[in-house]
Amino acid sequence: MRVSVVGGSDVDAATEEVARALGRRLAGRGHTVVCGGLGGVMRAVCEGAVSADGHTLGILPGERVEEANDFVETAVATGMGHARNALVVMNGDAVVAVAGSGGTLSEIGFAFVFGRPVAGLGTHAVDGVHACETPAEAVDYVEQASSGREGRGGREP
Amino acid sequence: MRVSVVGGSDVDAATEEVARALGRRLAGRGHTVVCGGLGGVMRAVCEGAVSADGHTLGILPGERVEEANDFVETAVATGMGHARNALVVMNGDAVVAVAGSGGTLSEIGFAFVFGRPVAGLGTHAVDGVHACETPAEAVDYVEQASSGREGRGGREP
Amino acid sequence: MRVSVVGGSDVDAATEEVARALGRRLAGRGHTVVCGGLGGVMRAVCEGAVSADGHTLGILPGERVEEANDFVETAVATGMGHARNALVVMNGDAVVAVAGSGGTLSEIGFAFVFGRPVAGLGTHAVDGVHACETPAEAVDYVEQASSGREGRGGREP
Amino acid sequence: MRVSVVGGSDVDAATEEVARALGRRLAGRGHTVVCGGLGGVMRAVCEGAVSADGHTLGILPGERVEEANDFVETAVATGMGHARNALVVMNGDAVVAVAGSGGTLSEIGFAFVFGRPVAGLGTHAVDGVHACETPAEAVDYVEQASSGREGRGGREP
Repeated sequence: MRVSVVGGSDVDAATEEVARALGRRLAGRGHTVVCGGLGGVMRAVCEGAVSADGHTLGILPGERVEEANDFVETAVATGMGHARNALVVMNGDAVVAVAGSGGTLSEIGFAFVFGRPVAGLGTHAVDGVHACETPAEAVDYVEQASSGREGRGGREP
Repeated sequence: MRVSVVGGSDVDAATEEVARALGRRLAGRGHTVVCGGLGGVMRAVCEGAVSADGHTLGILPGERVEEANDFVETAVATGMGHARNALVVMNGDAVVAVAGSGGTLSEIGFAFVFGRPVAGLGTHAVDGVHACETPAEAVDYVEQASSGREGRGGREP
Repeated sequence: MRVSVVGGSDVDAATEEVARALGRRLAGRGHTVVCGGLGGVMRAVCEGAVSADGHTLGILPGERVEEANDFVETAVATGMGHARNALVVMNGDAVVAVAGSGGTLSEIGFAFVFGRPVAGLGTHAVDGVHACETPAEAVDYVEQASSGREGRGGREP
Repeated sequence: MRVSVVGGSDVDAATEEVARALGRRLAGRGHTVVCGGLGGVMRAVCEGAVSADGHTLGILPGERVEEANDFVETAVATGMGHARNALVVMNGDAVVAVAGSGGTLSEIGFAFVFGRPVAGLGTHAVDGVHACETPAEAVDYVEQASSGREGRGGREP
């Protein structure tokens, strides 16, 4: 399935390592990473996924696909700024939130709007977010919580 | 100034009365209400504002301005669904959140992204939301917190 | 009703005078001008409308309402760049196109998508655009062609 | 490079065959097809591309990736309705328009806004659209006209 990974664009090295491990785990389980395509958590999770031969989709706020980080496999420009946060969530079957601030909070809100389960790794303590200790636990949670509802996202493997 | 009022579309009578009182207070202080233009908190706050001769702007998720509630003075259709939540926040100088669920949480997140102060009335307990007891207290808070930064929003009074 | 006026942001003085006359005529007939809120035709048509005590709504590409020209009465920021062209058309009951290039052509296309009649003043020669010689003729055309379908656009007069 | 193919969603069998041939040609030349992801020209061009082992990206108006036609490899939901036409164009390095009506015209307009060359196959006769007789001629044109400006679109081949 597709898993939207949301989180801060400016995070510390420990958080980036969590995001990379999450990307590796998602790819290892056969999931495609959907994210906002820029830096910080977005870049690290893509790097992890690509290192494990996974697929990554980056939905960018700007008009230029060139803004995508180097580990985005398919970049989609929107030119709609922060409103693209809705699209990042809409295009996943589940959400994992890693750290983050306002933008991440907006994406958690959209996850509730669109009925997506949300696992959290060091992120906002909000009712409805399933707080996890490790990337593996987060992936287990979203797999179990999304069971049966996952979308297609095209002909992707 | 313009104040974005965000909150649930399906709320109980007591919450609607809070929203109506908030609308009256905002109008009485000369502020324009910006909201999502539909029902529940959105309708009640517009009703309150209009009853006090205030101005109301409704930014709708659908393509038809006719979807606006009866107390929206200027309706703007977007056709962009839930992503219009970003626009509701972007068009206010401050935000008051009244109750609400996922959509409201996304709007609180956007308020942080766009640097808007947020007063809360029975809404999500999130760091950065100034919890208030009464509509009057919420209006006092956003007036003080927005001091000096308010935008123009056109030639409105 | 509401009439969307679309056209170039960088036009010559003669075209600006046409847009001003169009704004005066629309206001004189009781219509609200909807436009993209920036310069050129957008500014001139708003100036004309305001000079005749009309109402103007500017739907902006950027995130800041302060970008609106001085004759926009109600400014709405979208932050969605050129995609906001769809909103400019969606929010009118009819369209008048004045000169213009690619952006105006996209708006003429959206007018057909949303079923809005289009009068043209020195604009693209495209099937479906009713070419007019004068602002008065353009206003007559959109009044007649929109008869019966006009929306509400909130509580506006 | 990426080529955005725009055109009608309800077209005759001959037009569909043109779109299929175009998809085959684009794929054969190593280009990724970007389109609106639905039926008619969008479906046919994806079918042609997939039959030649090409890549296809569908940018959908609705909120559900399941709306994509069966030949879309990567589907991206936007939930923004017709305003997504801007995104279809923004994500290609060049545009080929096949037949079509209002939506296609809006996309031709956006192509001019974003500086993308446009080849036309039985589409609107508008200044700036290079009218072609065959899919091969259209692909030759966009290859030559885009020379040097093509974007990356992620790590795609």
